[in-house]
Amino acid sequence: MKNLIIASTSTLHGGDYLDYLLPELAVLFKNCTTLLFIPYARPGGITHEAYTQKVALAFAKINKTIVGIQEFENAKKAIEQAEGIFTGGGNTFLLVSQLYKNNGMNALAETLKNGTPYLGTSAGSNICGLTMQTTNDMPIVYPPSFLTLGMLPFNLNPHYLDADALSQHMGETRETRISEYHAFNSAPVLGLREGSWLEVKDEKIILKGTLSARLFMQNKAPEEILPETNLDYLK
Amino acid sequence: MKNLIIASTSTLHGGDYLDYLLPELAVLFKNCTTLLFIPYARPGGITHEAYTQKVALAFAKINKTIVGIQEFENAKKAIEQAEGIFTGGGNTFLLVSQLYKNNGMNALAETLKNGTPYLGTSAGSNICGLTMQTTNDMPIVYPPSFLTLGMLPFNLNPHYLDADALSQHMGETRETRISEYHAFNSAPVLGLREGSWLEVKDEKIILKGTLSARLFMQNKAPEEILPETNLDYLK
Repeated sequence: MKNLIIASTSTLHGGDYLDYLLPELAVLFKNCTTLLFIPYARPGGITHEAYTQKVALAFAKINKTIVGIQEFENAKKAIEQAEGIFTGGGNTFLLVSQLYKNNGMNALAETLKNGTPYLGTSAGSNICGLTMQTTNDMPIVYPPSFLTLGMLPFNLNPHYLDADALSQHMGETRETRISEYHAFNSAPVLGLREGSWLEVKDEKIILKGTLSARLFMQNKAPEEILPETNLDYLK
Repeated sequence: MKNLIIASTSTLHGGDYLDYLLPELAVLFKNCTTLLFIPYARPGGITHEAYTQKVALAFAKINKTIVGIQEFENAKKAIEQAEGIFTGGGNTFLLVSQLYKNNGMNALAETLKNGTPYLGTSAGSNICGLTMQTTNDMPIVYPPSFLTLGMLPFNLNPHYLDADALSQHMGETRETRISEYHAFNSAPVLGLREGSWLEVKDEKIILKGTLSARLFMQNKAPEEILPETNLDYLK
């Protein structure tokens, strides 16, 4: 009964926050008047309140009211009772730490399995994978576990970035980092470029947007996946 | 009694492994014939043996023999008895996990405090800070702690990269990531550009190389630090 949009990024270069996704979100959340927003990832360290206001402005364009999870005494109940849920981007280590601290991780997984519509962007998408181990974020806090929601039978790398052949920087490319992940872990990793998202309906996992995504499997060469591909075979 | 070289990178663009540092290393390790190499960070997932061979080739140029820590039954003792130590780059999460697993973290800190000369590059430099929380690496394994050697009274960000004003990528810049770190942590962070290193002698911490480094303090604007600056005031 899953009904999810899992997006690489909230914002395209030159666009406004969530703008490119609004037509999809109007459909995803068509039966909701109020959405629960989870601001735990706090991009740039902004407050829960400031983040919630930013999100409320974007969702007002499709006539949805936003309530931040910080306004509830019991985060777990807030998740269970939500009409629809959005988890925004920021720092994945912080998001995962706060979800565990507030008993939200299991509650969110159960709630999404039962069909509550969900939008994730960036860190909020990362947590839809099996683990957060292919995040790009800095470990600014120490989470109790790297295990996440498992809404997908693989891991995500949002904001996937192809190597720049002209770069003289010697830091690891994204592809190298993911190959290091596969030296120790077997789960597939989908590199989701900015502008791409996954549409999850029940067990179907369809790549959306105009770009291809890059699929990394342990002990295999990376592969480009075309839009409209159903990734449910990655089990 | 510290005697350390803590380098942003092992390799400059277009250069050979460790080449730009060899004159410094000949001085740092002048009283050593054999160095202990810690290959735990395994860049690209290569084996301890392959990594050790690569390092041995580079150090042969200054007539040093390299022995990998994997060749010893007791890693702690190998560290304590080493004439000099080099920890190479790769994945910091893996390095820290393996150091803890082999009872090497505390042993290494104590050994370096007692004056054993040490070279760190990239991940091997990251661990010289208070914590590994400003690494760029992917969390491919879950370490028991983010605490590291504390050879410096601050944290490092190796391979520091200035924001590209022309980029259309919406992922966080390095500076944004470090400011997120400072939303939750107070330790200073030094962004060490490729080609820069810190020379630590006793309590002196001198920035070396031709480039400036970028210093981030909580609740302050970032600051450029010039070569030859002594950073021991950052306590």
